[in-house]
Amino acid sequence: MKIGMIGLGKMGLNLVKNMIDHDISVVGLDLNPASVQEAVDFGAEAAKDTQELVDKLESPRIIWVMVPAGKPTNSTIDDLISKMDAGDILIDGGNSNFKDNLEQNVRTTKAGIKFFDAGTSGGMEGARQGGNFMIGGDDPEAWKTIEPLFKAISEKDGYLYTGKLGSGHYLKMVHNGIEYGEMQAIAEGFEVLEASQFDYDYEAVAKLWNHGSVIRGWLMELAQDAFSKDPHLDQIAGRMHSSGEGKWTMEEAMDLRVPTPVIALSLMMRYRSMQDDTFTGKVVAALRHEFGGHAVDKKA
Amino acid sequence: MKIGMIGLGKMGLNLVKNMIDHDISVVGLDLNPASVQEAVDFGAEAAKDTQELVDKLESPRIIWVMVPAGKPTNSTIDDLISKMDAGDILIDGGNSNFKDNLEQNVRTTKAGIKFFDAGTSGGMEGARQGGNFMIGGDDPEAWKTIEPLFKAISEKDGYLYTGKLGSGHYLKMVHNGIEYGEMQAIAEGFEVLEASQFDYDYEAVAKLWNHGSVIRGWLMELAQDAFSKDPHLDQIAGRMHSSGEGKWTMEEAMDLRVPTPVIALSLMMRYRSMQDDTFTGKVVAALRHEFGGHAVDKKA
Repeated sequence: MKIGMIGLGKMGLNLVKNMIDHDISVVGLDLNPASVQEAVDFGAEAAKDTQELVDKLESPRIIWVMVPAGKPTNSTIDDLISKMDAGDILIDGGNSNFKDNLEQNVRTTKAGIKFFDAGTSGGMEGARQGGNFMIGGDDPEAWKTIEPLFKAISEKDGYLYTGKLGSGHYLKMVHNGIEYGEMQAIAEGFEVLEASQFDYDYEAVAKLWNHGSVIRGWLMELAQDAFSKDPHLDQIAGRMHSSGEGKWTMEEAMDLRVPTPVIALSLMMRYRSMQDDTFTGKVVAALRHEFGGHAVDKKA
Repeated sequence: MKIGMIGLGKMGLNLVKNMIDHDISVVGLDLNPASVQEAVDFGAEAAKDTQELVDKLESPRIIWVMVPAGKPTNSTIDDLISKMDAGDILIDGGNSNFKDNLEQNVRTTKAGIKFFDAGTSGGMEGARQGGNFMIGGDDPEAWKTIEPLFKAISEKDGYLYTGKLGSGHYLKMVHNGIEYGEMQAIAEGFEVLEASQFDYDYEAVAKLWNHGSVIRGWLMELAQDAFSKDPHLDQIAGRMHSSGEGKWTMEEAMDLRVPTPVIALSLMMRYRSMQDDTFTGKVVAALRHEFGGHAVDKKA
């Protein structure tokens, strides 16, 4: 099997190495020459642009797009639709919004290109050693062609064909929404412990909870690792960035009118963590002062 | 080693069997003769009341209380304080509020009884096969006496001496708060999937997520089991009971002024699930009608 891989960043390069380990040939393309060189050193072929990448693969081609979600992915897919042939297989492996995929699917279908949207979990280590993949696509026959690829690069039982195009990234989106909620719940628990009258060793607590407790899991293992490096996380600022999938889960929940308060608050607490002070706080302090004469803290 | 076990319910009986498997002798006591008989059939001695249980153990005694939290546990502990001797060890293994333990500790300390509060996670299977224990107590020397007991009945690395009396149940309380949040996050995710335009096999999704995804964990394994039995949980009403530890976590968070919105909303959603209709809903519907003439749904 031979794959074209567009995007040799942290995830793409690890996937390429994982594929080559499993005797899958790869033609790689990236804007960064150092990444291309690393892929070539590992055994991949290089292509200088999408046309050369397409030319270096025989029909039916399999091309995996692994570039940043949004504009970079969408323009790459548009470019490929114009260059690929009917019967070729196109996989969007990035963190795309399923709505973009649904819109692209109209055009890939018209061109006869078999389009799949693959959500990926498991981080860089998963990409390298065996990842977790949720794959949607309208053509179950074409899925059979690429199933051996996903089987090769997944953790055991770590891939699922989820049905219609869009369902892969949708499932990954909801996965991330759950992840937001679980992370916030774990973090709130440790903040209560940190404020408590007791003196806990958080690395020991996380380790304990990973050995037979109901809340054992990968996130708790990562907490154990983090506390082993920095017992009170003194070196880390509590600013929680987010890259979109929690927001998309909320947008979808609101469109569907499904109450998801924990995912919502997880997202809001991420936004709050990015603010040093809030206008909300100023307004509430001002109102308390207006109606009750309560003192306000002057800005330093 | 010989232990007195008061309370041979679901957890206590499984702990007794686990102890006997590990060559720990047990004198058991319960109000239910059938439970006592089951313990005796497994190799335990029986005691008819706390006095006989105390008399059947030699000083320094080790007595484990595993009866329902609250009044049953507290009255049993009061009774034992009056019957046990200085140097004896008393373990509260139930789901007690750490504040009750702190209050009891004043009296056990006065009586010279070494008091430990042990929070237990891992459910019935853990109690039987190897549980997860968080144990607080003011006397590190006495801890050394009972550590072999906990080592014997725990999953590997599944016990932790957490320091001062109260810290065991406090940690278990926060563990359960985290559990509330994680469960609600998982459940909200599946509700979005259930409302979505796609058709997912939830057992397959949970299984997938347990093989290399960031949100793998025991709760997701339990979700997989549940969906394997009932793919859309049609046989289960969505009423979420709670037994107190989530509420205690919130009370503590509020006393400490620690923001824990996800744990809070998890608890509120449990309360909401126990209501068929709400007064809140009536009030909001009435207000919308009053100011905007919006239609209200008449009660059926």
